[in-house]
Amino acid sequence: MKKALAFDIGGTKIYYTIVNEQGEIDGDIKKNSTPKTIDEIKSILEKGIAENPDVDVIAIATAGAVNNENTRVISSTGNLPDGYRNIDFQKLSDKKVFVENDANAASWAEYKIGSSKGCANSVMLTLGTGVGGGIILNNKLYKGKSGSAGEMHFKMYPDKRRKCTCGAYDCFEAYASGTGLKLTAEEITGNKEITTYDVIDGLKVGCPEMTKVFKTWQNHITQGIIGLANIFDPDCFVLSGSMAQFVDTQKIEEDVNSEIVTSPTRVKLGTAGNYSGMIGTALLALESLEG
Amino acid sequence: MKKALAFDIGGTKIYYTIVNEQGEIDGDIKKNSTPKTIDEIKSILEKGIAENPDVDVIAIATAGAVNNENTRVISSTGNLPDGYRNIDFQKLSDKKVFVENDANAASWAEYKIGSSKGCANSVMLTLGTGVGGGIILNNKLYKGKSGSAGEMHFKMYPDKRRKCTCGAYDCFEAYASGTGLKLTAEEITGNKEITTYDVIDGLKVGCPEMTKVFKTWQNHITQGIIGLANIFDPDCFVLSGSMAQFVDTQKIEEDVNSEIVTSPTRVKLGTAGNYSGMIGTALLALESLEG
Repeated sequence: MKKALAFDIGGTKIYYTIVNEQGEIDGDIKKNSTPKTIDEIKSILEKGIAENPDVDVIAIATAGAVNNENTRVISSTGNLPDGYRNIDFQKLSDKKVFVENDANAASWAEYKIGSSKGCANSVMLTLGTGVGGGIILNNKLYKGKSGSAGEMHFKMYPDKRRKCTCGAYDCFEAYASGTGLKLTAEEITGNKEITTYDVIDGLKVGCPEMTKVFKTWQNHITQGIIGLANIFDPDCFVLSGSMAQFVDTQKIEEDVNSEIVTSPTRVKLGTAGNYSGMIGTALLALESLEG
Repeated sequence: MKKALAFDIGGTKIYYTIVNEQGEIDGDIKKNSTPKTIDEIKSILEKGIAENPDVDVIAIATAGAVNNENTRVISSTGNLPDGYRNIDFQKLSDKKVFVENDANAASWAEYKIGSSKGCANSVMLTLGTGVGGGIILNNKLYKGKSGSAGEMHFKMYPDKRRKCTCGAYDCFEAYASGTGLKLTAEEITGNKEITTYDVIDGLKVGCPEMTKVFKTWQNHITQGIIGLANIFDPDCFVLSGSMAQFVDTQKIEEDVNSEIVTSPTRVKLGTAGNYSGMIGTALLALESLEG
């Protein structure tokens, strides 16, 4: 069975491991803190490649948009060092090096071995510090003209209320993310020190104010999904990322299906796990060898 | 050269004509008011089919969502008689009868002979009494799981302000349509009798209040396009429909490109003309014969 050496390069950690053609992790998971320089990042990649000579392909899931040729990062990536987008990943190995955006890769893992398996059309939302998006259409990852499709920066308001990390205002990400939950909590409570943990803890013990904060946040997610459902008419939505565990997918699904003009859709939690980025990019990389 | 008999069935008019493989209209345009009963609608179709025995296919562009098999309408269509969705169009002729949603068909006409020609990925918005949408991805019409994708009912606000014709609140259609312009004018002026003509006339003579109304409306269009650009990373947007002539596409394009996180896109006026629905469905129908 063919195997990929898969990396996940994020703003805080770089992971790597071996993933086989069935999407199974077939080795230890190596973890490193993301270093501050390009050279140190390259060193981690080179070390992983040297340790694993018997793989068929190198597969990288990374923060940032990746081009349609799956060779390099094309967007700026706030949490990675300057010049990250200039890395020529192919130079790191004589084997094929395949690169994909981490959210896109995770959505592919959900499609191949997770909760959107069998869904020809699906939209994955990773609810974490930010919001990532991955779109599968007609059984293929949808990348757009340059490779950067699936950015969940559509507007929740049209009149400039809350600044988003992207520099614009009122993007879905600025409301539906963990950061968005904190900002909603600040607005409702007036407390600038409040954390997402405070909200979740309050929700668990039935605190009315924290419940209101949480429901406001979850409603933003619902409203965003309604729009995406009408645009894409997808078989399902997959919610993953660290914040997804707290949402009531059944309630969201009911609310979405009561409002959309397209046919009913499903809202599911992701099941491909914490390493879905590595699994997805490995599966895409292994499939690309067959081309 | 092969030819299609093409119909456009809308809430107020039913048109039909002959369209050839190059997307050229090759006959008179016949016009009928849309009758109030299913039988009368069928009679118009049967009359058109009887008049044109020498075509290769019957192509219908219609209001309402159409299934992925291109055989029948699957949504309710407010402006057409009850039971319209039950019409079995194939029974009207021994030749193949091909059906597509009117906005989808028009977007295909723009792609084949109009302003999105050469764009692998594009989103068309028809700005009329309502807002229609047509999405071309990877050089194909994107229809979703049931055929009803491309409904431009994503939210402008998350908190229930303006009711949309779809029954939900605050959809893009409720702001970006001609109806949306009238409602925005009502809100800003307090005058319930104001019309879209009043706004356009006021804009033309530099009336500050009407200019404010118009800019608010155009900003809603811009904000919606920003979201769609980040989601789809398309080569271009095409604006068509009766209201499109009034918008400043250059200004919208500049504003969109200054905010999106994906790569720059284009915003263009449609050029496939008033009969783009018939042209698009004819071209799709003729292509389907080759399959």
